[in-house]
Amino acid sequence: MTAFAAGVNLGYDPSYDPHTGGRRGGVAHTTPERVGEILRRARDVASRIAGTSPATRQGWLTMIAESLRTHADELVQLAGEETGLGADRLRAELAKCATSTIFYGAVTAEGSYLDASTEGIGGNSTLARWNTPIGPVAVFGASNFPFGFGVIGHDVASALGAGCPVIVKAHPAHPRLSVRLAELVADALAAAGAPDESYALVVGFDAGLQLVDAAEVAAIAFTGSQGGGMALVERAAARGVPVFAEMGTVNPVFVTTAAAVDSAEIAAGFVGSFTLGAGQFCTKPGLLFAPAGAGIFDAVLAQLPQAPRAPLLTAGIARGYRAGLAGLAEAADASAEAATATATATGTATEPADDYAVDPQVFLVRLEDLHPGSRLLAECFGPVALVCEYENAGQALDALTRLQPSLVASVFTGGPADPESAEIVRRLLGQVGRVAVNAWPTGVATSWSMQHGGPWPATSRSDATSVGAGALGRFVRAVAVQNAEPAHLPAALHPDNPWRIPRRIDGRLTLPTPDFRLNLTKAKP
Amino acid sequence: MTAFAAGVNLGYDPSYDPHTGGRRGGVAHTTPERVGEILRRARDVASRIAGTSPATRQGWLTMIAESLRTHADELVQLAGEETGLGADRLRAELAKCATSTIFYGAVTAEGSYLDASTEGIGGNSTLARWNTPIGPVAVFGASNFPFGFGVIGHDVASALGAGCPVIVKAHPAHPRLSVRLAELVADALAAAGAPDESYALVVGFDAGLQLVDAAEVAAIAFTGSQGGGMALVERAAARGVPVFAEMGTVNPVFVTTAAAVDSAEIAAGFVGSFTLGAGQFCTKPGLLFAPAGAGIFDAVLAQLPQAPRAPLLTAGIARGYRAGLAGLAEAADASAEAATATATATGTATEPADDYAVDPQVFLVRLEDLHPGSRLLAECFGPVALVCEYENAGQALDALTRLQPSLVASVFTGGPADPESAEIVRRLLGQVGRVAVNAWPTGVATSWSMQHGGPWPATSRSDATSVGAGALGRFVRAVAVQNAEPAHLPAALHPDNPWRIPRRIDGRLTLPTPDFRLNLTKAKP
Repeated sequence: MTAFAAGVNLGYDPSYDPHTGGRRGGVAHTTPERVGEILRRARDVASRIAGTSPATRQGWLTMIAESLRTHADELVQLAGEETGLGADRLRAELAKCATSTIFYGAVTAEGSYLDASTEGIGGNSTLARWNTPIGPVAVFGASNFPFGFGVIGHDVASALGAGCPVIVKAHPAHPRLSVRLAELVADALAAAGAPDESYALVVGFDAGLQLVDAAEVAAIAFTGSQGGGMALVERAAARGVPVFAEMGTVNPVFVTTAAAVDSAEIAAGFVGSFTLGAGQFCTKPGLLFAPAGAGIFDAVLAQLPQAPRAPLLTAGIARGYRAGLAGLAEAADASAEAATATATATGTATEPADDYAVDPQVFLVRLEDLHPGSRLLAECFGPVALVCEYENAGQALDALTRLQPSLVASVFTGGPADPESAEIVRRLLGQVGRVAVNAWPTGVATSWSMQHGGPWPATSRSDATSVGAGALGRFVRAVAVQNAEPAHLPAALHPDNPWRIPRRIDGRLTLPTPDFRLNLTKAKP
Repeated sequence: MTAFAAGVNLGYDPSYDPHTGGRRGGVAHTTPERVGEILRRARDVASRIAGTSPATRQGWLTMIAESLRTHADELVQLAGEETGLGADRLRAELAKCATSTIFYGAVTAEGSYLDASTEGIGGNSTLARWNTPIGPVAVFGASNFPFGFGVIGHDVASALGAGCPVIVKAHPAHPRLSVRLAELVADALAAAGAPDESYALVVGFDAGLQLVDAAEVAAIAFTGSQGGGMALVERAAARGVPVFAEMGTVNPVFVTTAAAVDSAEIAAGFVGSFTLGAGQFCTKPGLLFAPAGAGIFDAVLAQLPQAPRAPLLTAGIARGYRAGLAGLAEAADASAEAATATATATGTATEPADDYAVDPQVFLVRLEDLHPGSRLLAECFGPVALVCEYENAGQALDALTRLQPSLVASVFTGGPADPESAEIVRRLLGQVGRVAVNAWPTGVATSWSMQHGGPWPATSRSDATSVGAGALGRFVRAVAVQNAEPAHLPAALHPDNPWRIPRRIDGRLTLPTPDFRLNLTKAKP
């Protein structure tokens, strides 16, 4: 159920409650005329936003974060009605979104992302280079993170921080929440003094297509399925607009022999991680490799009844999960029977129901059945995972690194003395954006050192990250002026460094003061 | 005449002398088996190269530069025979290439490109992030810069500096030079202790295609025509490999009213710049806007006879130039007649000849005939340019910024007090990678602050540069390790900072020492 899954145009996005399957209102699609107006306004305001200081935009982001915190109860309630993700998870996601929004403000103000540099280049010539906002950014939000990736969250905050107007395409899984969130963002931006045109929401499949095709849109951020992301990448390629698509992946977990002695703990952690949010995480661990004989699969089976039956986000996702599960069960049964004849936890796919609730599932598979293109590795969004018990760690690692790249991998080791660990991490790094050591892949810290990305086709741009300080880098491009006069340069390169940012002067990286972080609040607006 | 112009496979690239059109030997195409072997060897050696220190790779680049300097006479002679670019230009290009290669070594050793960062993220968790070499890089060299962009030069040096094996596809315009240069590079790398597999040359169209399609190739750098670059981008898109294509553009020049008083000086500079290297520069100024009444076009016409008749690089380029010129003359005559009935300098296209020499040409065109898709703006590689005399600077700027983006633009102003200059620079920056103020666009400094790129379709990746310190960024991708043990991290993130590089520690950018550049030579290997 992605923005590009089908061209159905009902004229509105209906709102459904995943707990009951019942409908509760809906939101009208944005008309082509209105989308066109939003695009023109975003294009026209872009240079005005680009001309604001980082500290000014930090203020905008702070105001958004405060509004989210103020309206937390209402937003969690609304999100719960439309996503079924549960109040605890949603409250935590919203709190993290507010904190992340503050963080992107700090990254903006710190100013390293501007990559400001100036130097003499011989004779009387000079050269100055800095990163400039790329222009209006279209954000296609995810179904599974109503606060993290969409109307608010990582893409919106990092694009605004970088100085770009943002136009969000609402995900049809939570239309009422999207509209309410967009109101709060617009109000917060207005209260903070940002131009009205800095942010807009559009609703509907056709409105999304219009954004993809619009000359005004300078970059696109997408979080969702591989099918949806690839369709978007192909369509946008015609006009060369960069698309940062973060897509669903398998996210393998490797358990070393030394780590496997704690089979119950590994199994409990695995079940907890792949069933978190009903398995609807782009970082869900979908495939666990464990040494044969350690009893990990049996331990996982034993843990499975502890995992809650939970509703999926939409009827479409629930249908997709049930269908995918049936195909997976068939392929896995064949694989597992050939290996050990161990049955799966519940045997068959969950029966259709009025609500979208499904049971977690796990399958045992043979190493030799895991290969690129295998039906076992087809995307099945929801609480299902595979376990592969290997006889030979080297062969398992070989098989793993022949699979399609992922966003993240985990490795469980016996600690620093584990002789296998360094080589496993090294090889996994060729395959993913992040390796978590003795930690599950779910849980993505918004921090300076986060890399939430991965080689194609885990993402469309392996150099980019959609979480963490590097996220701003997606929405800028470098420009240079040769022999610039002061009036040609942004404040980033004025001699007195009014923004108090790190800069490269005549080839040498310089910090604004010995303790520049303490001075951020003194930065001139 | 690009690598993708046609599927003709003669089994060898013949070597022609542009001065006479005569053939002088040739070079056999690389067999598919040999290309396959080169690819496998590059893939297998990639992690070994990635594991070397920046200082080690700086040593490799220094050795290459020294070899180029040692063999300058021989190389300039050989390049002259195959390109007709003249000894002075070629000697200068080779000297600059050697200096640039040294520069990329310094950028490598300085280590900012690694973007190394580590921090605690709560609890006992840590996160470390750094840039890792992307893997084997395929370089498609240009016809027009035998030393700057191809077998040696910016792409090769920045890729090796970033820690990637390099495979170059020789340009058919200078096959004998390519083979000799590749021998020198391979010898220099061997003398510096680099693995044999770090660098290889392949020859022939089919060998180039094999590189584009090879799973072993992780990134592609291309310099050449828009047609060739776009074909490459489309073909590589199927497997998501990043293509950094720097393509031919118009590169507009804007002369303000205050600047136009020096019409003779502007005219002389313009003719010198657009006929440099027989107009075969990706930064050639192809379109000059000057205020009507200043007599700039007449001054340009008067200068034109001073510009030398010079051979183009290949028979194909000469044919293309003559054909393009004929079409351009027709379109321009229609445009100019409607405006002022001013004839062109030489009236008609140069007649075919045995050698590839052509005459420079300039055409006067009306502002209203300059629009995207106009025949006047069709690519015509060689010493031809347009002049547009505008009545209204604002209208001219509007027209200019509706044209296809370029790599670079120039603006000539009356100095810091010129009221037009700031707005012109600001608007041009939305359209190009670099704006040169009171300087011609040709001449690209290899420096920390250079941006040699531009919005699509000037390049395929507007965020990238193919010249300057930023060039290394094309060939790395970020990876993160959560809860890393020391054995999981590169030396970039070891506590004692053995590579003496800038790093971000707990969110704070830190410099290795107060005067780290002086300590570069002390860096551990």
